[in-house]
Amino acid sequence: MSILVVGSVAFDTLKTAYGEREKILGGSATYFSLAASYFTKVRVVAVVGEDFTGEHENVMKARGIDTTGIERAAGKTFHWGGEYGENLNEAKTNFTDLNVFQNFSPRIPQQYADTNFLFLANIDPALQLQVRRQMPNVKMVGGDTMNLWINISREQLTETLKEVDILLINDGEAKLLAGDSSLPRAARKVLQMGPRALVIKHGEYGATIFFRDGAHPFRAPALPIDEVQDPTGAGDSFAGGFMGYIASQDKLDRSVLTKAMFYGGVMGSFAVERFGTERLQKLTTEEIGNRFELFRSLTHLE
Amino acid sequence: MSILVVGSVAFDTLKTAYGEREKILGGSATYFSLAASYFTKVRVVAVVGEDFTGEHENVMKARGIDTTGIERAAGKTFHWGGEYGENLNEAKTNFTDLNVFQNFSPRIPQQYADTNFLFLANIDPALQLQVRRQMPNVKMVGGDTMNLWINISREQLTETLKEVDILLINDGEAKLLAGDSSLPRAARKVLQMGPRALVIKHGEYGATIFFRDGAHPFRAPALPIDEVQDPTGAGDSFAGGFMGYIASQDKLDRSVLTKAMFYGGVMGSFAVERFGTERLQKLTTEEIGNRFELFRSLTHLE
Repeated sequence: MSILVVGSVAFDTLKTAYGEREKILGGSATYFSLAASYFTKVRVVAVVGEDFTGEHENVMKARGIDTTGIERAAGKTFHWGGEYGENLNEAKTNFTDLNVFQNFSPRIPQQYADTNFLFLANIDPALQLQVRRQMPNVKMVGGDTMNLWINISREQLTETLKEVDILLINDGEAKLLAGDSSLPRAARKVLQMGPRALVIKHGEYGATIFFRDGAHPFRAPALPIDEVQDPTGAGDSFAGGFMGYIASQDKLDRSVLTKAMFYGGVMGSFAVERFGTERLQKLTTEEIGNRFELFRSLTHLE
Repeated sequence: MSILVVGSVAFDTLKTAYGEREKILGGSATYFSLAASYFTKVRVVAVVGEDFTGEHENVMKARGIDTTGIERAAGKTFHWGGEYGENLNEAKTNFTDLNVFQNFSPRIPQQYADTNFLFLANIDPALQLQVRRQMPNVKMVGGDTMNLWINISREQLTETLKEVDILLINDGEAKLLAGDSSLPRAARKVLQMGPRALVIKHGEYGATIFFRDGAHPFRAPALPIDEVQDPTGAGDSFAGGFMGYIASQDKLDRSVLTKAMFYGGVMGSFAVERFGTERLQKLTTEEIGNRFELFRSLTHLE
């Protein structure tokens, strides 16, 4: 099966306790597609500028990712600058140069039309809906969002959420979206907005999936990582592992969803071990399998 | 088997989003012993003042807890006042009236001498050590501490930790004690100080146990609770469920420890559902078993 992701392909300039990097490859669609590429065929819709080189694109191509949908526009690629202090779950943004992203109007290439799964990474909910409407026949739609859109585009976001099957957000976003400081209550309120399932990501504490039909929630742990060199992209990599695993399966039941939660955590944990997408570029099936088993043993009750 | 806990029996004056309570029964030894009483025989060493009535004592006696070791002193009982805002993991202390606790010098009653397990709840590490030395033959010693002692009595605490088998603290305490912001690294450093195992409590995200011998860590989830009416005593109740279950078993292996982690979470989750010790006073074996199963299904990979 195949999955299409729409989101940002960007450059990041970062500072963490482990060092600094300038203009390295980043963006929600990049992290997502690299993580998902270990499970299924991935197609990307995004926009980049003239400073996006063949070398950058080859990072994705080397993982078999279909980059036909990456549009080249005049100008510079979206560039984010930020740093992390003691609290690795919260980035301090130094600058956000939207550049070519400012006029992004996602178009789905003809050859992407038969895609089975869709992931709407964290971009303007109006653009998310625009893509969703161009892909009416997908089997399942996953989505992400952030505080910015909850604060400035709540109405638009509410429309988009009606057409998302599984929403993946973090604790703070869930509470803000629901206007409720109790996580399980917030989860129920968000599920009333449309999604059939809600994955709340807890950073180093793992993630919990809640279901609209009242099925019992499920929590997957995050591996305690010794050295989190760069937390950027952890959530997108979680989404890539989660959606990628789902897209690789024939059915979508609780057993698949719970394993997908583990694979999400696995890919998120790899992403943060090195700066940028470095670790996600060259994983082996064995490394992924071993970490899955490590996660399983972390919560396995004898 | 039996377990002895030394800690505070106190009054709490509390304010949470769900209401206020004045001078209700609280204290680390109280929460611990109520939670542990569902698993094993519990004995308490603490000090109370003249305002501690037979009615207060009956809360413990009704659960079969041996209160012989609760000393009556002239003056008032330890009284803590605090409140919780949005962040339920952090209390704002309004006052701490140590009262009779100021001159507490724990003495172990003769009839407690045959106790098998010992729990040093969160009190001055000098007093913890004093109790530990009076019980040289126990099978296993659990302990707790807090930022206050890490900051003002680090040397004394270091001495005490050498004689503690399992330390139970929260994320912030572990990082402060180790002087390291990475949780797994902090865990390893704390384990070098003496304990064979370290339980780090993550509040609503559960708890992780780390082992000095390098065995794989284990994480138990916390149940997402709709209404956390009063977080006071959650950690002590976790410790009570954890140590109580261990004391109820003939052996102490990984299987027992992982189940103990679940029972810790179960008792902590009950504690916060009502103000003070209300919920812990009248649980049934069935309620505890059901919640254990709920926890298991929360992380059970099919």
